[in-house]
Amino acid sequence: MLLQNLMTKYRQRVERALTERLPKPGIQPAHLHEAMAYAVLGGGKRVRALLVYLIGQAFGAKPENLDAPACAVELIHAYSLVHDDLPCMDDDDLRRGKPTCHIAFGEAMAVLTGDALQTLAFQVLSRDMEEDDSGLSSEQRLQMLATLSLASGSRGMVGGQVIDMEAVGENLNLAQLENMHIHKTGALIRASVCLGALACKDLPAGAFKQLERYAHCIGLAFQIRDDILDIEANTQTLGKRQGADKALNKPTYPDLLGLGEAKKRADELLHSALDALSGFDQRADPLRWLAEFIINRTH
Amino acid sequence: MLLQNLMTKYRQRVERALTERLPKPGIQPAHLHEAMAYAVLGGGKRVRALLVYLIGQAFGAKPENLDAPACAVELIHAYSLVHDDLPCMDDDDLRRGKPTCHIAFGEAMAVLTGDALQTLAFQVLSRDMEEDDSGLSSEQRLQMLATLSLASGSRGMVGGQVIDMEAVGENLNLAQLENMHIHKTGALIRASVCLGALACKDLPAGAFKQLERYAHCIGLAFQIRDDILDIEANTQTLGKRQGADKALNKPTYPDLLGLGEAKKRADELLHSALDALSGFDQRADPLRWLAEFIINRTH
Repeated sequence: MLLQNLMTKYRQRVERALTERLPKPGIQPAHLHEAMAYAVLGGGKRVRALLVYLIGQAFGAKPENLDAPACAVELIHAYSLVHDDLPCMDDDDLRRGKPTCHIAFGEAMAVLTGDALQTLAFQVLSRDMEEDDSGLSSEQRLQMLATLSLASGSRGMVGGQVIDMEAVGENLNLAQLENMHIHKTGALIRASVCLGALACKDLPAGAFKQLERYAHCIGLAFQIRDDILDIEANTQTLGKRQGADKALNKPTYPDLLGLGEAKKRADELLHSALDALSGFDQRADPLRWLAEFIINRTH
Repeated sequence: MLLQNLMTKYRQRVERALTERLPKPGIQPAHLHEAMAYAVLGGGKRVRALLVYLIGQAFGAKPENLDAPACAVELIHAYSLVHDDLPCMDDDDLRRGKPTCHIAFGEAMAVLTGDALQTLAFQVLSRDMEEDDSGLSSEQRLQMLATLSLASGSRGMVGGQVIDMEAVGENLNLAQLENMHIHKTGALIRASVCLGALACKDLPAGAFKQLERYAHCIGLAFQIRDDILDIEANTQTLGKRQGADKALNKPTYPDLLGLGEAKKRADELLHSALDALSGFDQRADPLRWLAEFIINRTH
């Protein structure tokens, strides 16, 4: 399948780009840099990086202009997982099939690892390793920095984590649940799409808004699928404890809607995502395939 | 005393600027925004912001060009304190004379508050609230972002915290102790001076390097003075538990050098700091007064 090839290609590309941008293992403080690499490399679907690359590919950006934003969104995602797994947060001991960062390196190191990964995300966007070759203008970089910081802060991803935390044991309605996900996972997925779009110099008029709508829909669908997988998949396939959300008494789509309705809602979002892309030619096909993949994935 | 007036003026200015840039209390998630304001406002010497303003004042930047960088360095500092105080880190329950963030808001919220404050620092630099009026070019903002992210990440402040953490119970020598402080507190103090300098359009040739040297010296002197105060001052004056470092078995300058030699070392650094400023006229006097204040402060 073509999407699988693209996913493999760009997953390898972003792994390489991340490796180049992470401080080398020998650089002091070595334990911290080891923990950062542990938390970032060697796992994960790289959906956020993939979005950056696919958008860029569809609208004419060079891959080397996309490495910095692709790394930045993955670094923000990785830092949020490290902190989310902490004992005082979700207290998870397994992530992507291996011990979480605080299990492997201790709790204090995990706090600092997450902190340093967040910083590195902004560092990569503000002055990339190959600044002169990247082809991104100062204005593009600044727009990316503004977009990513807004999406990952208190009114974006971190805000969503707080809403999530405060929702434990609460009876949320559908609007409240969606509001949580729009922030917690949706904001960074939208930012990934926007960063990809910001890297393109000749984006058609109105495209940005349609791409944001696409991102909004696949972001929510991604989360609904996660909720469904949390019920249906087993621990080995998922790389984390199955039923973890249920055990934490976190509200989920299947809780609110039932499993059948939750799947239907995910399908509706898929249709809206495809509709948002209807004005684009076949170069946007990988984005269409990705939307379908998100709804149908098994892990 | 003139420096006191300037300190009061700029402390008030940065408090106002921070208040304007923090999300308003009513904005959701309200608890997070409350915790962010709690951790940032109403306390602290604001030495880092003061450095931004004093450098800018000495070399011709408008105060309104300095608000964003002054806020950014204070936000990074505030986030680092919130995380540093966590139970898995220094486990402090008192900061600036009031309960630490995790005591007041819980541990999970404190992790997220620190995270969101770091993000806000980069957000403020990348797109300030009054972007059109700030007078900073995209290039200046990007240089500030690159400088601040490098200084606060794994090879700067966070790296220093790891070195500090791993030094507990170890016998450091003077070079190792200085290396820790150069990263842990020194990097952000140097960044504050550099951000102030980057806001100035007509900085004399060679000035940047001298100002970095000044920053290096006052950064270390600040830390030595902190160590001395930790022994000499009482809890009420200090706003945190006196002898806290000693209780944690953290290495200090007085441990290594004795109290008398530690004071002598601070004095030497003061002279070096003043020497670095020797090429500048009387507009740099507030920087000279600040260096003296840092060595002689009682809290």
